[in-house]
Amino acid sequence: MRWSNYFIPTQKEKPVDAKIPSHQLMVRSGMIKQESAGIYSWLPLGLKVLRNIENIIREEQIKAGAIEILMPTLQSSDLWNESGRYDGYGEEMLRITDRQNRKLIYGPTNEEQVTEIFRKYIKSYKSLPLNLFHIQWKFRDEVRPRFGVMRGREFLMKDSYSFDLDEDSAKASYYKMFIAYLKTFKRMGLNAVPVSAESGPIGGNLSHEFSIIANTGESEIFCDKNLLNIDISKKDCNSDDEISKIVEEYLGFYSATDEKHDKVSFDKSVEVDNQVSGRGIEVGHIFSFGDKYSKPMKALVVNADGKSSNVYMGSYGIGVSRLVAAIIESFNDESGIIWPISVAPFKVNIINLKNSDAKCSEKSMEIHNLLEGLGIETIFDDRDESAGKKFSDADLIGIPIQLIIGPRELKNGNVELKFRKTNKKEILSFDNAIDQIKINVLKG
Amino acid sequence: MRWSNYFIPTQKEKPVDAKIPSHQLMVRSGMIKQESAGIYSWLPLGLKVLRNIENIIREEQIKAGAIEILMPTLQSSDLWNESGRYDGYGEEMLRITDRQNRKLIYGPTNEEQVTEIFRKYIKSYKSLPLNLFHIQWKFRDEVRPRFGVMRGREFLMKDSYSFDLDEDSAKASYYKMFIAYLKTFKRMGLNAVPVSAESGPIGGNLSHEFSIIANTGESEIFCDKNLLNIDISKKDCNSDDEISKIVEEYLGFYSATDEKHDKVSFDKSVEVDNQVSGRGIEVGHIFSFGDKYSKPMKALVVNADGKSSNVYMGSYGIGVSRLVAAIIESFNDESGIIWPISVAPFKVNIINLKNSDAKCSEKSMEIHNLLEGLGIETIFDDRDESAGKKFSDADLIGIPIQLIIGPRELKNGNVELKFRKTNKKEILSFDNAIDQIKINVLKG
Repeated sequence: MRWSNYFIPTQKEKPVDAKIPSHQLMVRSGMIKQESAGIYSWLPLGLKVLRNIENIIREEQIKAGAIEILMPTLQSSDLWNESGRYDGYGEEMLRITDRQNRKLIYGPTNEEQVTEIFRKYIKSYKSLPLNLFHIQWKFRDEVRPRFGVMRGREFLMKDSYSFDLDEDSAKASYYKMFIAYLKTFKRMGLNAVPVSAESGPIGGNLSHEFSIIANTGESEIFCDKNLLNIDISKKDCNSDDEISKIVEEYLGFYSATDEKHDKVSFDKSVEVDNQVSGRGIEVGHIFSFGDKYSKPMKALVVNADGKSSNVYMGSYGIGVSRLVAAIIESFNDESGIIWPISVAPFKVNIINLKNSDAKCSEKSMEIHNLLEGLGIETIFDDRDESAGKKFSDADLIGIPIQLIIGPRELKNGNVELKFRKTNKKEILSFDNAIDQIKINVLKG
Repeated sequence: MRWSNYFIPTQKEKPVDAKIPSHQLMVRSGMIKQESAGIYSWLPLGLKVLRNIENIIREEQIKAGAIEILMPTLQSSDLWNESGRYDGYGEEMLRITDRQNRKLIYGPTNEEQVTEIFRKYIKSYKSLPLNLFHIQWKFRDEVRPRFGVMRGREFLMKDSYSFDLDEDSAKASYYKMFIAYLKTFKRMGLNAVPVSAESGPIGGNLSHEFSIIANTGESEIFCDKNLLNIDISKKDCNSDDEISKIVEEYLGFYSATDEKHDKVSFDKSVEVDNQVSGRGIEVGHIFSFGDKYSKPMKALVVNADGKSSNVYMGSYGIGVSRLVAAIIESFNDESGIIWPISVAPFKVNIINLKNSDAKCSEKSMEIHNLLEGLGIETIFDDRDESAGKKFSDADLIGIPIQLIIGPRELKNGNVELKFRKTNKKEILSFDNAIDQIKINVLKG
């Protein structure tokens, strides 16, 4: 993609209302534009990252056996009256009246809606276990939306819902998602900590938050350092047994949110040197809540003995749009964003130092076409701007690999390669540069 | 994908409230489930088709130079007051009040929102032409939502917005979308007719609808038969000149909606044998409306002479969710849906006639894995159901190629191939069957 044919409205100034790095950097790099309080447009660069994150989540959900559907944004209030949450949910739920005076709500979550789908179609235990997920915009009417997309009102969420015949099977479904979540975050370069949590308005007796430790986190979390050292990407998780063993390994270490934290037990079970406490950004939350919805909403299946029983359910959420901000909070420096390859909007940023030099422009375009041909998404900064402006914009938008083309090196058949993560530059021949790019994009 | 691990709730009975084939078939094949009047959940099969359609549209938009963004579903009423449409839009616009008593609306279209984005970032004619598009859920509070997703209230739309410095350039942008639309629909197997249309609440002086002729169309259209015979997929459309020539060819033939139809002119310009009149399903609508929004909303750029001028705008919509229904209206028979390859949720449906025969099950799974390995999406009907049920469900959900595996043919190293379009069956060796599948999937 040629920068001059694209739309990346970068800005040098920090927006005055943006208090945390991710919010500042998303505005400065032209990723988002606020439209109302807590409501954002996603500009091209932001949307690309959002889609990359969404796709990683989708792939891991499907690998874990979940099936994708798409429920609408607006729901009838009837369902929420059935579950008893219509009155209880509070002012965060956006309530709407249509032209026929029917009461609708903009879904803040979908337990009721998915239970309605389940009870309409599924009648027998033979169809279980079942896990349905969707990735859809939600709305929560926060009193104080803030920190950009970190705590927006209209936000993109992935939510899955599991249905099982009994408690053991429900636990296996919960564990499956537990592992899928860790693998999902790891693919984005994030070491998420599963933290034992309160279940809040969703309900249930088993619940974990997945948090990223970052200075700007909204709440405090406490955990055993060993939790951070488990590398989920190296674990085999192919059977229920393998999954169970690994989850039990995680659960063996202390971890708790502020509300659940118990200092006595923390001190007893974790050596002082291993005690980690820090601010956490919640990027996922999973719940197992038995028949909390299936009972009032009569979601029943016939079991092997011919008897009806309420299904055991769980729900599992990932904040897709929030993750964009959480990843930036984890990966940035004073010059801008540092995207992990897996979610980067482009993998390579070609910087043409001298547009007026025909050879530079030709070579830039040639390498651009070569990389795109290899399936490596590339942005080519062909703007009539100074080298300084191109450098600072490149650092700001944080494409992992910068390929710098100028008359001096070109004469010797060379280009300069800069890795945004280390900010180290290397002068390489064309072929070596392409090889380096291929290797780095492949390893992610 | 194994059918037994998937979620396709087919039903034999016609839903009583569904009046047109596409609505009946989408419910019967388990593609959608109504949640409220005009509001639907997309079940796995329906969602896959929706995404395939969305991707074709996206690809053609990007090829035509449009840049993807994503605007939110909810908009502030302020913007609509600026354009003067807040009061005028009528009851179809869903009006919402949030907890802080701010007025929001669920976007029925995005002219105001995108003009706000434009005026914030674009200041110079050098950034023009620009075309921004998004694919987002919209809401129109229809009095009588009906015909399933054909006229829903919450619906998925692709809308693009072009910005140009002058009228000539605006016309070139309009023509580009004109061709992109024809190519888009053609890739879905649809011969869309561009019909001169009223511009309605969007406004402007130049407007075309793109309609599919089908018995169940909502309005009448009139056109010259020659229009239907142009094959856009065979036309080169690489430059503004080429595009202009082809659009003028289309515009040379008579076509009009009911409102614009002029019998005298129709009779005069079209031979009786070539006069086509029929019901049309509108799947796209494009508008060129100059400064209708840029003037009240002050979207200005500085031109080459240093003077400010309002930009010329156009907007271009495709009903993504509606297209799912329109395609079914075009391609169905008494047994069910007949998907064109390009949008089919799976390309091949493997029918195992005898689950209890180990060899049949093994061979089915082997071919399934082989096809998936080739990137050919395959559903394998491994359910414990009768052959009759599997056949009728296969015809109902309309996967283009059925591959039937039974003990009798298997003994001779053969399988049966059925093309849903012709309902013709052929007995072939494994290798020949795979070759036939590859050829048919490739040619689309």
